[in-house]
Amino acid sequence: MSRIAVPYTHRLADTLARLASPGLLLSATKSSGESNIMTIGWGSVGIVWGRPVFTVLVRPSRYTYEFIEESGEFAVSVPTVDMQRYVMLCGTRSGRDMDKLVGLGRVASPGKTVRAVSLDSSPLVYECKVVHHNDVIPDHLAPEIEAKSYGGQDYHRLYFGEITGTFAFTNY
Amino acid sequence: MSRIAVPYTHRLADTLARLASPGLLLSATKSSGESNIMTIGWGSVGIVWGRPVFTVLVRPSRYTYEFIEESGEFAVSVPTVDMQRYVMLCGTRSGRDMDKLVGLGRVASPGKTVRAVSLDSSPLVYECKVVHHNDVIPDHLAPEIEAKSYGGQDYHRLYFGEITGTFAFTNY
Repeated sequence: MSRIAVPYTHRLADTLARLASPGLLLSATKSSGESNIMTIGWGSVGIVWGRPVFTVLVRPSRYTYEFIEESGEFAVSVPTVDMQRYVMLCGTRSGRDMDKLVGLGRVASPGKTVRAVSLDSSPLVYECKVVHHNDVIPDHLAPEIEAKSYGGQDYHRLYFGEITGTFAFTNY
Repeated sequence: MSRIAVPYTHRLADTLARLASPGLLLSATKSSGESNIMTIGWGSVGIVWGRPVFTVLVRPSRYTYEFIEESGEFAVSVPTVDMQRYVMLCGTRSGRDMDKLVGLGRVASPGKTVRAVSLDSSPLVYECKVVHHNDVIPDHLAPEIEAKSYGGQDYHRLYFGEITGTFAFTNY
């Protein structure tokens, strides 16, 4: 099904509900053409520096990290309900061990405004170009979050991605 | 009018539209009981560290900065359309020179989950406790944003506020 451009706030409450469960799909593509995809449960959407921004958090240990570092782009695909098993697999398997796109039978295509691929089967896709990044700073974090989410290591990098396009199936 | 608790995504697209124009109202209260309020045009809402988070950006030069630094809390009030003139004034006058609450005839009250005050006349209010902060890093910023928004100085601090309560008028 073809997608049309929609406002970045299109069905945003639904997007955030799916972010909470089962997760959204974050993908990035290197200049070599190689892509990776991972499940994210955290993210933020708003206006920063006068432009719509999707902020995602990626740990340096994740395979996707090097894809975003190299390309400076990413895409976020909202899954349908029947993609729940795929979303779970993308959250538990590393792209270092398997190709989560080809290996799991999913088709992904480059974006309209970024080279980063997104899933053809997703009804809503955000295409983003990184305009800033900074890191979670241990000493500036609430202690209970530090203990629960980090335990002293692998602090997330925050990528602030200008939303260069939001595209939805015409029936979504 | 009394407010009731609502999901943090309640009318979120409308909140972000008002963030873009004319702005939302960011307020904070010191332990002394003194409060300040300012207009913001940038911010982000989502889920981080497994909890709803409202991220706001405040320049160190702003009077509000010291209020959030001291209290570790803030509130965001969504203005009604007829508050547009007040929102503009809050964006152009500093709390160092006038009390923008009392001086402009606005009534503000402490939150239900934070001490930070919010405007009684706002139909939707987010109450937030800071769980993390970091700063815009010049070297990690897209050059056109650096030039347009900073020119080498007064880089924003990002306050990640856990949304401890979202409260709306019953008719909003």
